[in-house]
Amino acid sequence: MDLTENKSGKRAMAKNNLPKFFKEIDKETWLVEDERDNMKLHYRVKEVISSEKSPFQHVNIIDSYDFGRCLVLDGVMQTTELDGYIYNEMISHVPAVTHENPKKALIIGGGDCGVASELSKYKELKEIDMVEIDEIVVKECIKNIPAIAANAANDERVNFLFEDGVKFVKGKKDTYDIAIVDSSDPVGPAEVLFSEEFYVDLKNSLKKDGVMVCQSQSPIFHKDVLKRTRSILKKYFPIVRTYKAVVPSYPGGMWSFTLASFKYDPLKANLSRLVSNTKYINKEIFKSSFSLPNFMIEDFEEK
Amino acid sequence: MDLTENKSGKRAMAKNNLPKFFKEIDKETWLVEDERDNMKLHYRVKEVISSEKSPFQHVNIIDSYDFGRCLVLDGVMQTTELDGYIYNEMISHVPAVTHENPKKALIIGGGDCGVASELSKYKELKEIDMVEIDEIVVKECIKNIPAIAANAANDERVNFLFEDGVKFVKGKKDTYDIAIVDSSDPVGPAEVLFSEEFYVDLKNSLKKDGVMVCQSQSPIFHKDVLKRTRSILKKYFPIVRTYKAVVPSYPGGMWSFTLASFKYDPLKANLSRLVSNTKYINKEIFKSSFSLPNFMIEDFEEK
Repeated sequence: MDLTENKSGKRAMAKNNLPKFFKEIDKETWLVEDERDNMKLHYRVKEVISSEKSPFQHVNIIDSYDFGRCLVLDGVMQTTELDGYIYNEMISHVPAVTHENPKKALIIGGGDCGVASELSKYKELKEIDMVEIDEIVVKECIKNIPAIAANAANDERVNFLFEDGVKFVKGKKDTYDIAIVDSSDPVGPAEVLFSEEFYVDLKNSLKKDGVMVCQSQSPIFHKDVLKRTRSILKKYFPIVRTYKAVVPSYPGGMWSFTLASFKYDPLKANLSRLVSNTKYINKEIFKSSFSLPNFMIEDFEEK
Repeated sequence: MDLTENKSGKRAMAKNNLPKFFKEIDKETWLVEDERDNMKLHYRVKEVISSEKSPFQHVNIIDSYDFGRCLVLDGVMQTTELDGYIYNEMISHVPAVTHENPKKALIIGGGDCGVASELSKYKELKEIDMVEIDEIVVKECIKNIPAIAANAANDERVNFLFEDGVKFVKGKKDTYDIAIVDSSDPVGPAEVLFSEEFYVDLKNSLKKDGVMVCQSQSPIFHKDVLKRTRSILKKYFPIVRTYKAVVPSYPGGMWSFTLASFKYDPLKANLSRLVSNTKYINKEIFKSSFSLPNFMIEDFEEK
């Protein structure tokens, strides 16, 4: 592979209209994830389906060879058709089933609409407020990744609120049964979604028996984020449980979610409420996701 | 990042002695995994600790920024200090505990010595035959990755047999209590380790209550290999169980292992036999690794 080939005029031309994280290598388009210091991933791209610049970020929908259609924000893979359902199911169904009878749900972030689509499988939910700052992300996903976004787009219970989630929850009291923080990594704009102040506001937005879940990053590569998230939530909630899932398209493979709850314990959840139209989660997976490896137990000093 | 920079004489020089999958990019050395069609991974390298050419392959030990010391064969990451223990523990402890009282173990492959190191934690094992075709791999790992290989290197019960595993098992009868196939991917030399003929020979090498395990690839990216492995093993063993683990340094994250057994069922194993000096596996993880996601259950048509 001669990487200098993309200097030729012809091949460089195709790149002119695309952000620089798309590179032409050997006449093929590749998405080059460049933001990590020590690891880079290149994904071979069939087609860049859309390329928008929102007020917040570069928003691309691509069709990739291995992962199908994908949402890419500022050059970083966010959700893929191939495995996006694993993350979206795990962050959605666990709180929806842990709460005995949720009526009103809040989603912070979740621009791919995957979480809203999963929640919409619960008939008992009457309202799903999805607060996503970037309208372009939502529009592009609804238009171009229906496998992930269509359920939400077609469900009248989903309220799309294109606002800053941090401002949205500030001052909300006693409103939601479940709240899900589907943030990107805690760098740049999403950093505040990992702050203590935000978690306190979110806690206040919950009803007295409310349940919240956040993605708490890789337990291997971001041990500090996970530990910090747990210790903040433990200050405000009597029940805090971390669970895990595999996320094939994230480097690091294993991902953690942390659930915090005033009353309902996921380890005692009534699993007959779990819907069956899922690709990943089932009762066994629900239960086993709370079994943590020794190194995590040691990290939490709960041994 | 200008990838043409590595054309300069000075930077190219350092590469002269290294195989071409080590590239100089922006004055840094990177391992570029190039063998996949649709995805490439680049790992930033602190130091190439050793670079050997065995009769079978390029054998490199590197120190990498994110994964610590790693074994690299023909430019493909095989085992890393950061997460190698997950794979090695899952493929070793599950058969060692499923069998009620194993005395004699066989490992096919496993050149990094991680499986032999894990098995050596079981005092009841009297003999561990490790059959690895490439002596250079074993020597380099013992010398340079003691975190993975030292236990095996220092254990007199481990017999290092530098032979072709396929030939080794041919004709063996009624010899082993447990057998572990720790192969690389089913392309090139390891392909035969996924063949029916080999599995039949391996079956014959087991005692009447023997247990075998093989790595059966990613359930997302290599569904066909997993299905084929299961259907071959089901012809010859009454008990066939697939279990899963996360393997962060493999793209695809989730990995599958398939256990085949004449008598002992891992779902009824006596988990008090599981040793406690592990980083990943514990009783809960042992049990929960057999909980499979819906898409796998559907793939197996066992629903």
